[in-house]
Amino acid sequence: MNNQYPFPIDPRLDLVLERVVDVPPELVWEAWTQPEHLKQWFCPRPWSVAECEIDLRPGGRFRTVMCSPKGEKLPANDGCYLEVVENRRLVWTSALTPGFRPLVPSGEDGFLFTAHILIEPEGKGTRYTAIAMHPDEGGRTKHEEMGFYEGWATALEQLVEHMQNQAH
Amino acid sequence: MNNQYPFPIDPRLDLVLERVVDVPPELVWEAWTQPEHLKQWFCPRPWSVAECEIDLRPGGRFRTVMCSPKGEKLPANDGCYLEVVENRRLVWTSALTPGFRPLVPSGEDGFLFTAHILIEPEGKGTRYTAIAMHPDEGGRTKHEEMGFYEGWATALEQLVEHMQNQAH
Repeated sequence: MNNQYPFPIDPRLDLVLERVVDVPPELVWEAWTQPEHLKQWFCPRPWSVAECEIDLRPGGRFRTVMCSPKGEKLPANDGCYLEVVENRRLVWTSALTPGFRPLVPSGEDGFLFTAHILIEPEGKGTRYTAIAMHPDEGGRTKHEEMGFYEGWATALEQLVEHMQNQAH
Repeated sequence: MNNQYPFPIDPRLDLVLERVVDVPPELVWEAWTQPEHLKQWFCPRPWSVAECEIDLRPGGRFRTVMCSPKGEKLPANDGCYLEVVENRRLVWTSALTPGFRPLVPSGEDGFLFTAHILIEPEGKGTRYTAIAMHPDEGGRTKHEEMGFYEGWATALEQLVEHMQNQAH
């Protein structure tokens, strides 16, 4: 990944998925920022995205509702964008709600993270880096055990497949 | 305050201090963004600011250490800038640490808030609005009982006095 990234990554606390994909940065950006696209790839199948709301500005809402294979909706994930750099970088967090309001502290079920999606041109494709930053090792471990690597990799494969179909 | 503010304020959850002060926006901005200035006004006397670190960019550190009248340093307040709009708007939160990393959840002692400082020209001075956004009513009440209105008003008076002395 880009060694110039201005925020230090801590292997004890953070999870990083890096891939080079055969889709240009502009289409990766569209996939992440347009609800009709995001719904098609964001959840590893047979799970799906039932709802998606994107208010694409720092402080704006990023809200998704997952749907189980049996059609049951999970509670909404309601987060907040932090950095929006077109075709290059998208940062959002689950620790703030829209308007940058801190989240009501919850019990032990949830965990907080900030996601940094880095999008860099590489050849005709994209070097794609997803970083999940956690407050502590417990958060990182929990996210890893929930299947971060497999889940985010599968979702990325779905993103690539979906956007390639769009382009053709 | 500016009715165009893009993030809704909730009177149940938020505290707002609004004043028109006799200092231009550029000097209010300097007072908030340069450690040597901030140290002179940020804490109502006889409390003081022992340390101040400012990395003025979204995701950058905003760290202060308060010092009691007896010279005892309190634990650092280590927050993160969210929006940096020169001479107009400064937003930071205590809910994230630098790099937008979520804070380790703490016990009952602390509370989280996001501060929005709005700076608008008015005549030769500034319409100054400080908004503290909390996750819940408990957070707002606690902040109010800690003396939000008196404390932030006194600090602002100190800011004005300090920057007027700079200008002369």
